[in-house]
Amino acid sequence: MPKGQPNAVPDDGLTTRQRRNRPLLAVHTGPGKGKSTAAFGLALRAWNQGWPIGVFQFVKSAKWRVGEERALRVLGDSGEGGAVTWHKMGEGWSWVQRDIESSEEAAREGWEQVKRDLAAGTYRLYVLDEFTYPMHWGWVDTGEVVSVLRERPGTQHVVITGRNAPEELVGAADLVTEMTKVKHPMDAGQKGQRGIEW
Amino acid sequence: MPKGQPNAVPDDGLTTRQRRNRPLLAVHTGPGKGKSTAAFGLALRAWNQGWPIGVFQFVKSAKWRVGEERALRVLGDSGEGGAVTWHKMGEGWSWVQRDIESSEEAAREGWEQVKRDLAAGTYRLYVLDEFTYPMHWGWVDTGEVVSVLRERPGTQHVVITGRNAPEELVGAADLVTEMTKVKHPMDAGQKGQRGIEW
Repeated sequence: MPKGQPNAVPDDGLTTRQRRNRPLLAVHTGPGKGKSTAAFGLALRAWNQGWPIGVFQFVKSAKWRVGEERALRVLGDSGEGGAVTWHKMGEGWSWVQRDIESSEEAAREGWEQVKRDLAAGTYRLYVLDEFTYPMHWGWVDTGEVVSVLRERPGTQHVVITGRNAPEELVGAADLVTEMTKVKHPMDAGQKGQRGIEW
Repeated sequence: MPKGQPNAVPDDGLTTRQRRNRPLLAVHTGPGKGKSTAAFGLALRAWNQGWPIGVFQFVKSAKWRVGEERALRVLGDSGEGGAVTWHKMGEGWSWVQRDIESSEEAAREGWEQVKRDLAAGTYRLYVLDEFTYPMHWGWVDTGEVVSVLRERPGTQHVVITGRNAPEELVGAADLVTEMTKVKHPMDAGQKGQRGIEW
């Protein structure tokens, strides 16, 4: 429940307004639940502002995020807020016209598209869901990600989710939240539940 | 990214299906961001399942959650998923016909309504936003909350958000996630941003 008041005024030569409109890089990491759900919750706010939103799902799964995807599509199509574009690695990225050989290649293609969109200023909020994994596995170069994000034009907010966020990414982020698992029903032998896990 | 597979099968005499349909009590706590946003992300999944959702906002603030509220209202009204009912303490609970003297009284009134709805099985998902505070402050008795939740009928999922979740509540919960602040822009002197903080 932050009160919206900073503890100190920084000596960065920026006005409050400039600081307020600074593009944000947020990272949701850690072993607990809520990393992606919080990112999609953030997308609700962006939608309410009328911002164009791009979701890039860096995970291959048919079942996951179906609820979030349908909700954000209905919201985007309602015309009452921002437009939502949903890119899914699991079904092949929509802009790739040829067969993709491996998950590694698919992840790289996704990142290439994010780079193009950032350069073009396509979205105001980017949800790069589970994007820490391709970095963690060395499929996408973290140093390149950090430098591309650092130099992105305009006010494009980016939220990256997933466990094992590389230290270099954490260092470059403005907002980092670690979700810690205190207790999980799977520990008590419960399987994932419809409406809760997906 | 839980794989949906439990580590152990519990000796609780329940079938997998029974366990799968068990009502869930989730708590999002800790000093970091994302406690409420993750709860609203969860509401997207519930909406997608067609479940009736009740949101109880136990915090007085005009600006906060405006994005989430508008998005969930549009979703609820779309007729494509579950219905959404949004109760706000800040504007007085809609069912209270008289003047409420204090925040403490308002919090108690909110909890009384939650109890009535739980007894009636009104919703399938309850988002009790910032409900840890009235418990932490002693306005609402944690022991009573825990015992009411323990005995709630049917499959009514409940998610409670806020810092300082009482230990007794954590003990009774099935899923507890602690959001830890690793880094926050306010530390660098940045004020809350439109579309990000609200």
